[in-house]
Amino acid sequence: MQSAEETIEFWYEFASTYSYPAAMRVEAVAAEAGVSVLWRPFLLGPIFAALGWSTSPFNLQPAKGAYMWHDVARSCEKLGQTFRRPEPFPQNGLLAARVATALPDDGARAQFSRAVYRAEFAEEQTISEPEVIAALLAAQGLDADSVLAQAAEPANKQALRAQTEAAQRHGIFGAPSWRTADGELFWGNDRLEEALAWAQATAASPA
Amino acid sequence: MQSAEETIEFWYEFASTYSYPAAMRVEAVAAEAGVSVLWRPFLLGPIFAALGWSTSPFNLQPAKGAYMWHDVARSCEKLGQTFRRPEPFPQNGLLAARVATALPDDGARAQFSRAVYRAEFAEEQTISEPEVIAALLAAQGLDADSVLAQAAEPANKQALRAQTEAAQRHGIFGAPSWRTADGELFWGNDRLEEALAWAQATAASPA
Repeated sequence: MQSAEETIEFWYEFASTYSYPAAMRVEAVAAEAGVSVLWRPFLLGPIFAALGWSTSPFNLQPAKGAYMWHDVARSCEKLGQTFRRPEPFPQNGLLAARVATALPDDGARAQFSRAVYRAEFAEEQTISEPEVIAALLAAQGLDADSVLAQAAEPANKQALRAQTEAAQRHGIFGAPSWRTADGELFWGNDRLEEALAWAQATAASPA
Repeated sequence: MQSAEETIEFWYEFASTYSYPAAMRVEAVAAEAGVSVLWRPFLLGPIFAALGWSTSPFNLQPAKGAYMWHDVARSCEKLGQTFRRPEPFPQNGLLAARVATALPDDGARAQFSRAVYRAEFAEEQTISEPEVIAALLAAQGLDADSVLAQAAEPANKQALRAQTEAAQRHGIFGAPSWRTADGELFWGNDRLEEALAWAQATAASPA
């Protein structure tokens, strides 16, 4: 039994490679399961820094990094998504995350986020550059200057910090992560289907 | 099109939590796909030590560790497998890996390996203890003294070292890992199905 109440939180970081295929496929897979997606941008930087890491674990662990590049390319090919390795990696996703936070989660945030991932992982653009972000907003029919100004507001910066703190409270340590309404956590692009099944089973069972 | 030639290598480490559900389910899932399993015990210790790690990354990264314990228990429940968290963690799997290496990969190695995982992750036994390993061998109808003596031979110790070096050459950085006959690598219990699909597709395509 499905209802409009079933939701899943999609926790993503713009520098994260596996968040790219996750962002491109989540809406279709979730819709098929009758589940709505809540887009939750956050920053992995502070979470990694707390472990003493100055960069991505994929840079710190060469064998794991080599596997990841091969595996992400393989996963994207399966989805029919172009994949090009960004240089440098990781890119700085702070500006994109602030803009995503400023946009309403009514479709605009999801559309912008997918555009950022495409720019970063398919089109060899540098997402830390304000002109790149402005062009993505304009292509979406939004007033780029206005959105960028809103993203730079102290209250919006604070909202992103609060979101990252919430991620830590929820036990999130990587991206993408999926969180169901009853707080169950699943880590990784390849666990989306299991997270959706959990959301459905929880919603179907009597309270 | 399937043939008896289709194989998949199952690279596992006895201290590895996710290798437990992998070991318990691999034969049934692979048989359904018409693929034979090659059991490849190796040691993660030297691979972690090369990264400067003195223990499991699940101990070094508390949030990731907390998630793993919850997720492995959840995965085992789904499989109908008992799961109890071993104390201490990680256990030292060197003796078990030497014994597994000494046993022929004709079913005896797989049967012993599953028994070790059950002892460690379901029955609160300490797999570094020779008596525990001897009892598992005896329960399997093998001459424990003879197998333990064979496991302690320099040639067998060297075979396990060579196997761990082969893992590193193959780019393996964690367990379980799956490797197809054409060298494609998949990491994680949850990627077994994808690895088997790869093995089938490769075998089906004309050379």
